[in-house]
Amino acid sequence: TEPYRVVALPGEGIGPEVVEASLKVLQHLAQIEGFSLVINYGLIGQPAFEKFGNFFPPQTAQICEGSDGILFGAVTKGGILELRQHFDFFINLRPVRPFETLLNKSSLQPQKIQGLDILFVRELVSGIYFGPSGRERDENGSYGYHTMKYYDWQISRIARVALQKAKERRGLLTLAHKENALPQIPWSRLVQEEAKHFPDIVVEPMLVDNLAMQLVREPKRFDVILAGNLFGDILSDIGGALVGSIGLLPSASINERGFGLYEAIHGTAPDIAGKGIANPLGTMGAVVLMLQQWGETNAATRLIQAIERVLALGYRTADLTPQGEEILVNTATLTELIIQQL
Amino acid sequence: TEPYRVVALPGEGIGPEVVEASLKVLQHLAQIEGFSLVINYGLIGQPAFEKFGNFFPPQTAQICEGSDGILFGAVTKGGILELRQHFDFFINLRPVRPFETLLNKSSLQPQKIQGLDILFVRELVSGIYFGPSGRERDENGSYGYHTMKYYDWQISRIARVALQKAKERRGLLTLAHKENALPQIPWSRLVQEEAKHFPDIVVEPMLVDNLAMQLVREPKRFDVILAGNLFGDILSDIGGALVGSIGLLPSASINERGFGLYEAIHGTAPDIAGKGIANPLGTMGAVVLMLQQWGETNAATRLIQAIERVLALGYRTADLTPQGEEILVNTATLTELIIQQL
Ligand SMILES: CC(C)[C@H](C(=O)O)[C@@H](O)C(=O)O
Ligand SMILES: CC(C)[C@H](C(=O)O)[C@@H](O)C(=O)O
Repeated sequence: TEPYRVVALPGEGIGPEVVEASLKVLQHLAQIEGFSLVINYGLIGQPAFEKFGNFFPPQTAQICEGSDGILFGAVTKGGILELRQHFDFFINLRPVRPFETLLNKSSLQPQKIQGLDILFVRELVSGIYFGPSGRERDENGSYGYHTMKYYDWQISRIARVALQKAKERRGLLTLAHKENALPQIPWSRLVQEEAKHFPDIVVEPMLVDNLAMQLVREPKRFDVILAGNLFGDILSDIGGALVGSIGLLPSASINERGFGLYEAIHGTAPDIAGKGIANPLGTMGAVVLMLQQWGETNAATRLIQAIERVLALGYRTADLTPQGEEILVNTATLTELIIQQL
Repeated sequence: TEPYRVVALPGEGIGPEVVEASLKVLQHLAQIEGFSLVINYGLIGQPAFEKFGNFFPPQTAQICEGSDGILFGAVTKGGILELRQHFDFFINLRPVRPFETLLNKSSLQPQKIQGLDILFVRELVSGIYFGPSGRERDENGSYGYHTMKYYDWQISRIARVALQKAKERRGLLTLAHKENALPQIPWSRLVQEEAKHFPDIVVEPMLVDNLAMQLVREPKRFDVILAGNLFGDILSDIGGALVGSIGLLPSASINERGFGLYEAIHGTAPDIAGKGIANPLGTMGAVVLMLQQWGETNAATRLIQAIERVLALGYRTADLTPQGEEILVNTATLTELIIQQL
């Protein structure tokens, strides 16, 4: 059988560390499960700028072209937005599920999150990150602006994805909107129109401010949460607090063809970069999502279970502030332990 | 001495119920503390539209003109944004402090919020709510847009307020921004420039997504949080989850002259409107802020203490889901109990 072609874009900060750890695990999985891999590396962010004068250079675009998946580390800013738009990765999936053994790491009471299972569906290539922007001056002074712009079809296509996901899950789709202040972008109407083709799905539009609150107050009431680019960014990070560490959460960014970019939702964490202590579980969770997308469900399940066993044995990276019987480990040791459990 | 002229704008939903309850308390305070009140009523939101064809009619603007404070209920959408802009209420203060006796109502672990004391300073009359907006069509289809626009001076003036508040408090100012995606509005640079006049204040710019997460993970690390209009809306609602109910939180919207509008941060709550069961404590907290602005600090303290005593006696409105020894009361009973304790 053909090998899977993976492009690794380590980026900056802790990016290279968590990507390296995750590739090790992926390679072991390939051996065990009998599939093969070709791994190519590309530059993005600051390292790309230093070499090519461009945060997302054409060379990197070309390496990604025709691959089966991109494993992404982290960047401070430059590169990621261009990369998402280049491949039209409009679907951003961010599952939020706590590990049973880490319930005590949440700032929430354990019963508030035990059994939590939320899927954020975030629109990723439009909205205020990509609308007209600039700096100008008029008689009132200097100003800057960014435009939140959505074509109706951009909302409809992500709505269809979210509705389909809700159908495969528990049937509730909560839509984040702010139509009492931003009425020109009619999320509720457009989502409800698509929902006519999904008669079994309950669509619940909710003001984004209220949603942020409910997410902390009663997280288990949610199933699928659909949001535009900016609101999805903010709301899904709250998920990190729910499960105990942002270092745990993965994300998949997928286009119409099913081609995707896989990354943790955390950033470059400059304060701990280069120390070898970053939590690689977010990126390993992203590997799980990539394997699932490929249809390698055995490998995906094997990896999830290995991670769960290592956590059950009490091993924790520093972000999870090990306490009592728990054992502090660095990135490399955690990775070795997971490989042993595969 | 001159009476304080208060304008009551009850609005819609539970607005009239919580405003009525709060005015009762305010009138008792006036008797006890020996100041006098003139209360005028104005229409806003749906009732104003029904009578005048305008959510914020000139008649209402005129009633507010020259008053000493506006006590506001709630509206669904129409009216409030116009009102804020009309009086240039650019300073929105949202203190978040849990009641000791309600620590068990938070979804967070009690030790995460005991002693919590955050002040949100939200810019209230600019940003994406007020920028150019519309619906258009081009060769790619129909689209809607809203523009996040900030004049530099609009950021500088709210920064000065936030810095001053930080100086009167614990000296830490966290700034919510999203400059990795929205670089044309240089919040960090402008706030840091103003901070040169406040050498003792630590200014900490933080990406809004990360801030949302940290707010849930480690809320006590914050002192003053400065945010633009949209981010301030979302972040401050999270405060409702921290303290146990959005029904508890007050807000003051103030202009350069110190004239202000006082309201709870909750909305119209259509599901419970008209039932007489709404929690009036957010609006009563707004009365406290109004009294403080007037310099009536005795009256303000008296009201806070009366509320604390009633809560300590176990009385709870439905939003606080009374359990065990706690006693469920409706709006009117809670208000009577507070008046007895004044
Ligand atoms: C009603 C709505 C426009 C308003 C806002 O977003 O400002 C409300 O949520 C608030 O926070 O006062
Ligand atoms: C780096 C930044 C532009 C990015 C975003 O806001 O999309 C990040 O926060 C994310 O969520 O992937």
